Amino acid sequence: MQHDLTLAANALRMLAVDAVQQANSGHPGMPMGMADIAAVLWSKHLRHNPADPLWPGRDRFVLSNGHGSMLLYGLLHLSGYDLPIEELKAFRQMHSKTPGHPEVGLTPGVETTTGPLGQGLANAVGMALAEQLLAAEFNTADHTLVDHRSFVFVGDGCLMEGISHEACSLAATWGLGKLVVIYDDNGISIDGDVKGWFGDDTPARFEAYGWRVIRNVDGHDFAAIDAALNAATENVGKPTLICAKTQIGHGSPNKAGGHDVHGAPLGAAEVAAVREALNWPHAPFVVPDEARAPLDARERGAAAQREWEAVLASHPRAEEFTRRMRGELPAGFDEQAATQLNATVAKAETIASRKASQNSINLLAAELPELLGGSADLAPSNLTQWKGCRSVEKATAGGNYLHYGVREFAMVAIQTGIALHGGYRPFGGTFLMFSEYARNGIRMAALMRTNPIYVFTHDSIGLGEDGPTHQPVEQVATLRLVPNLDLWRPGDAVETLVAWQTAVRHRNTPTALVLSRQNLPHQARDEQTLADIQRGGYVLMREAADKPLQVVLIATGSELDLAVQAQRQLADKGVNARVVSLPSCFTFEQQDAAWRRSVLPAGVPRVAVEAGVTAPWRQYVGLEGAVVGIDTFGESAPAAALYAHFGITVQAVVAASLRCLGG
Amino acid sequence: MQHDLTLAANALRMLAVDAVQQANSGHPGMPMGMADIAAVLWSKHLRHNPADPLWPGRDRFVLSNGHGSMLLYGLLHLSGYDLPIEELKAFRQMHSKTPGHPEVGLTPGVETTTGPLGQGLANAVGMALAEQLLAAEFNTADHTLVDHRSFVFVGDGCLMEGISHEACSLAATWGLGKLVVIYDDNGISIDGDVKGWFGDDTPARFEAYGWRVIRNVDGHDFAAIDAALNAATENVGKPTLICAKTQIGHGSPNKAGGHDVHGAPLGAAEVAAVREALNWPHAPFVVPDEARAPLDARERGAAAQREWEAVLASHPRAEEFTRRMRGELPAGFDEQAATQLNATVAKAETIASRKASQNSINLLAAELPELLGGSADLAPSNLTQWKGCRSVEKATAGGNYLHYGVREFAMVAIQTGIALHGGYRPFGGTFLMFSEYARNGIRMAALMRTNPIYVFTHDSIGLGEDGPTHQPVEQVATLRLVPNLDLWRPGDAVETLVAWQTAVRHRNTPTALVLSRQNLPHQARDEQTLADIQRGGYVLMREAADKPLQVVLIATGSELDLAVQAQRQLADKGVNARVVSLPSCFTFEQQDAAWRRSVLPAGVPRVAVEAGVTAPWRQYVGLEGAVVGIDTFGESAPAAALYAHFGITVQAVVAASLRCLGG
Repeated sequence: MQHDLTLAANALRMLAVDAVQQANSGHPGMPMGMADIAAVLWSKHLRHNPADPLWPGRDRFVLSNGHGSMLLYGLLHLSGYDLPIEELKAFRQMHSKTPGHPEVGLTPGVETTTGPLGQGLANAVGMALAEQLLAAEFNTADHTLVDHRSFVFVGDGCLMEGISHEACSLAATWGLGKLVVIYDDNGISIDGDVKGWFGDDTPARFEAYGWRVIRNVDGHDFAAIDAALNAATENVGKPTLICAKTQIGHGSPNKAGGHDVHGAPLGAAEVAAVREALNWPHAPFVVPDEARAPLDARERGAAAQREWEAVLASHPRAEEFTRRMRGELPAGFDEQAATQLNATVAKAETIASRKASQNSINLLAAELPELLGGSADLAPSNLTQWKGCRSVEKATAGGNYLHYGVREFAMVAIQTGIALHGGYRPFGGTFLMFSEYARNGIRMAALMRTNPIYVFTHDSIGLGEDGPTHQPVEQVATLRLVPNLDLWRPGDAVETLVAWQTAVRHRNTPTALVLSRQNLPHQARDEQTLADIQRGGYVLMREAADKPLQVVLIATGSELDLAVQAQRQLADKGVNARVVSLPSCFTFEQQDAAWRRSVLPAGVPRVAVEAGVTAPWRQYVGLEGAVVGIDTFGESAPAAALYAHFGITVQAVVAASLRCLGG
Repeated sequence: MQHDLTLAANALRMLAVDAVQQANSGHPGMPMGMADIAAVLWSKHLRHNPADPLWPGRDRFVLSNGHGSMLLYGLLHLSGYDLPIEELKAFRQMHSKTPGHPEVGLTPGVETTTGPLGQGLANAVGMALAEQLLAAEFNTADHTLVDHRSFVFVGDGCLMEGISHEACSLAATWGLGKLVVIYDDNGISIDGDVKGWFGDDTPARFEAYGWRVIRNVDGHDFAAIDAALNAATENVGKPTLICAKTQIGHGSPNKAGGHDVHGAPLGAAEVAAVREALNWPHAPFVVPDEARAPLDARERGAAAQREWEAVLASHPRAEEFTRRMRGELPAGFDEQAATQLNATVAKAETIASRKASQNSINLLAAELPELLGGSADLAPSNLTQWKGCRSVEKATAGGNYLHYGVREFAMVAIQTGIALHGGYRPFGGTFLMFSEYARNGIRMAALMRTNPIYVFTHDSIGLGEDGPTHQPVEQVATLRLVPNLDLWRPGDAVETLVAWQTAVRHRNTPTALVLSRQNLPHQARDEQTLADIQRGGYVLMREAADKPLQVVLIATGSELDLAVQAQRQLADKGVNARVVSLPSCFTFEQQDAAWRRSVLPAGVPRVAVEAGVTAPWRQYVGLEGAVVGIDTFGESAPAAALYAHFGITVQAVVAASLRCLGG
């Protein structure tokens, strides 16, 4: 083994060195430093089948320090995934399967998109959690269907980031005994020797969380690495951190151990020196068979999957397990959804949309056992718990509700990991303001085309006395700008249920549900109008048919009723107005042009009202229309007083409409 | 002491209980639990002068768990600050000085705005750092001018948040021996008993960072609290964490120790029960003199300040110290700024704006010794270091450059703390994408009207091969929506210097400098055009005077030159176009209407070009104009290939212009 692994590890090194050199861009240092550990892990411990990268029984491998992407591409290529050497030659080039940082869905075998540091680690916590919960739900005395590990590589950067604290504290609380994190302790980050800015006793820190820590492993000693991994894969009900001492750029005679090797090509001279030092006579991108052999997982992977599939075949709930892992809704969902919607319309409730959200969860949870809820310590405010939900304590004991604690960023990144793992549909709540703590995690979920659901309550100055630190002003607008994020700000309980139903139907899009603290009146709708909600933007209240339309009032969420009332007052003044509800701009923009024109006819003045920043509404009202909103920070006072103070009122909508008409 | 402090502590409890009850909103549990500790700290340890809340020599006190605001208002009121009882009666009401969460600048004695958990702690790290650096810079053998402490209250929520990890790791690295954090270990958060989601061994965690930890202090035993604070204020070159066991809602016979007391009024019956239990016969908001006496700091505060002012008076650099603490620019700054600008124009360099930023820093650092730079482990990429800057290692040894490590959120919140403390002008860099890790910290700086400077480089797909995880698309647009944040995206080296000069002139506004990785050509300007840059939006290239203006091209940053080239191509086609550079929408919107109309004349079609999301540009181009930009995530490829692929090109600007003209 020793000899072969040296060749395999050096193959990984040279692929990284040559690819970075060819791209004239990239990070050779980490792949060279972690190649020995990667070679041992992937040849001796990782259970995976290159022929089926989505096999549910596979171990998950996450490269949290994603800038070392060439290490992963080398591993996938040498293991036998559908990632030919031509792709490695096209590292960091347009439309290749080898982008600068690993991207899930693009490259077979890549489990999650990494690069923004610390988040891959949190994704892996979500994967390890999903595995344990699924095991609790589906394993039987006769069927060990769910039994795989999650391995993670992390660097100093990942461990400096705050999200590592949040995610690793939770991993211990949940007792994720099959999570194994390998810390690339090379002592170097971009500014240089980390001693000047990273003085943590990391092993002691992780022991304080309740992790098992395996210290002082020589990351260039195959036997030591193998022993550490053997120890780590013995499940003691705690996550494991292996602290591996490595040398960044190991194998580079003149640059190893320094920060120059971190993020830039070595240069032709040093590439030649590496070839010499590693005794690697092969041309760039040429790997001899004996170097490939230890990593080639095709045969053993196929055998492992066959064995697993036999277990699945005899499992009493094989069909349900397969549905869940595929992320498909159960048969009959659409009929149930229609029934639920009609029942909600019939109730005609005036309630806060956060309460309507809880009602929706209660309805959906009865149909979808895969719902895995939670909140960042705001369950009683977000109203994310439902009848019969069961809190997860130790993950081995199962459950379907997660108390994330005050950890918004980890919550979001863990949800992404759960969604990537499959088997559950995660949703999680916090105040809309604190979505900002998780901001890049939301973006990453959208970039990865995953589908978590965010329950963001207390969505405007309408939250009242908590004041400007808690009152969203620009948050709805900024979230709307994240590509592939569907944001719904429903105006009543009926729209809230449609928002939830849309969210659970999304396969490749995360959804932000933006909900009020305060009560919102029910809006009456005929059958067609009810059906139109799912288009994201629709005519809630038509103008009088016998006169020309004079102004279109556009509103969302808690301001929808202001527009409805303004329409009446305008009618009293002889102005013929229409009310458009626009709970999801994302969905509305996906409708065809004819629909959009029918809702927002050209040439008719428009007035938008939303308790948020006004400028983005120019997208809908143009330069000539008007926007009623708020462009400053809020204040601490009761909600009604704030609406009056900031002039977000029926009168303001009426006045703005009259101004647009030259009145 | 014991008896008086009991009265004082109970006064704090009752003020909180009665104010929350009267507001029918708020958090009584924390003030009741922390009242005893607060009474000891404020009566026996905190050095402050209620008559001068901005006295530079005062100790800083930060309530990081800001929802316990009534504790702070009670302390300020009883200490003798200008916060009369009428203000406490108006708790959480419109325009009172007692908002739901403490707000700096609004209430005398409040040092920072808190509420979003964990950030107050990071602010305090910044304050403690500023104190140590100032001491190193200004204390002499004969003048101990700077010598004060920073005290912080934190709750479980603060310590769960990731930012606590980032900030506390740095506090130890920097050796902040005068930072004392008191942990309100009450075992309760909003979801209930924290055991289910907060299993950290917090003392061990902080020891792993290198803190001194004082464990197991009974938070309701005055002598134990006093002893712990005495021990903590002995400077051993490490920050100190006091772990205080407290009971949330202490004094409430039926609700203490549970989560019901955390965030809701006690109700009339329980308020009466508390009065009874505390033997407090006084009406709401009535505090007898003997309860006030221990906290009344007016006399001793004035004496302490007088003593300090004598030291200042004899200090050889008293004037400079005072200027620095007031945040004023040095005399002659404007002349130097003009000279620097002319020199930069003369150089006419084609360089990346991140490089131009470094050149600007070099110029400004020569004038402004208060500049305190840094980066979140991206110094060689952000180009935030300058000639002669000196890295801070232990803060007692001074320095003016901070290696924050990979900790964006802490960096931003620490900068806010530095700015609030006074004496330094902090700036710090990261990639624009990772501004998202710090998103709410940026907003808090803007809300607080502080003036840190953010150096956000690698601002678009122009960063190239690192790919979509690193390529900003929506980030510029979303940051522009934060109230009171000035964002500059300069188009060449000259605009970059103006942006920097504007940033350092801001007193109450933070600035985000959004900078390119790639080179940007120099733009020629006459004297008037040069002077116009500071208006945020101006005509860079006039249309031909002898023909009617047909289209206005609006651009920022790296796309400015595309607009300039498009103007030429349009001229070749007989179209008379103007080029408007709009590096700062914030600044442009502050100009009078006449200026804005002169730059963007009504009725002329407009085309905007920016390598970012397009919808927000409707604010400037309306529904009829055009926007050249990108509305999807980016890709990994060389920058030039990406611009071509996504169609952000001169040709696209020309084509869009022709379309607007019906061509």
